[in-house]
Amino acid sequence: MSCIFCRIIKGEIPCMKLAETPHALAFLDISPLSKGHCLVIPKFHAEQLHQLPDDALAQTAVLLGRVARAVGGQNYNVLQNNGALAHQAVFHVHFHIIPKTSQGDGLGIRWNCAEADKGDLASLAKEIVAKMEATPSS
Amino acid sequence: MSCIFCRIIKGEIPCMKLAETPHALAFLDISPLSKGHCLVIPKFHAEQLHQLPDDALAQTAVLLGRVARAVGGQNYNVLQNNGALAHQAVFHVHFHIIPKTSQGDGLGIRWNCAEADKGDLASLAKEIVAKMEATPSS
Repeated sequence: MSCIFCRIIKGEIPCMKLAETPHALAFLDISPLSKGHCLVIPKFHAEQLHQLPDDALAQTAVLLGRVARAVGGQNYNVLQNNGALAHQAVFHVHFHIIPKTSQGDGLGIRWNCAEADKGDLASLAKEIVAKMEATPSS
Repeated sequence: MSCIFCRIIKGEIPCMKLAETPHALAFLDISPLSKGHCLVIPKFHAEQLHQLPDDALAQTAVLLGRVARAVGGQNYNVLQNNGALAHQAVFHVHFHIIPKTSQGDGLGIRWNCAEADKGDLASLAKEIVAKMEATPSS
């Protein structure tokens, strides 16, 4: 049991708790990007979002909304990273709520988008739909 | 009815649909940051996450998981922006799923975190908890 978030959930490691439900927990990030930066996590251990069962997803999202109502302010980002390349550092699903009060604080985003070819998008959509149809729901 | 996502939901504007449930919709972003970049939105119209009722949050999160299983790959970011300063461009809640296959593609993140003073964090946690207790659930 080396997952630091599982240990926080069990109370073995302290946290700055904001809220707890039977299925999810919210606490302040101790290395915040801005004032109020916090984490909302499912108690169910999964490394990545797509590994969570539906009920854990649903219950975590409800707590996310509740905490955002108290923390978010006018501008905030919700970010959930999956995989080291995508900036995940703790391998237990967590949603960041990151308030933004100026260009300089909070989450910085680089948005290098490109207009996609409509034919390519249509083929890709078909491919993904087929994959979803082949994937049983949790 | 000028919300572009509400018009997509109603079928007045086409989209590269991936999945639809009675309460949520997923479709490809036409200006993707990477291949597979898509959006998952609640059918309930709200500008920001904290304005969504619990059931819309829960149902959107379940679809988010389902789409991530088909799209996400090994590395991906889930991002949901609230407010223009936080990079929100369409004012109807939407979760981006952004696959990341290299440092150069997908979402770029600037992470200027700072170790916070524990006393400050404890006071802030108390303040947020009080605010949550004073806020009725949706």
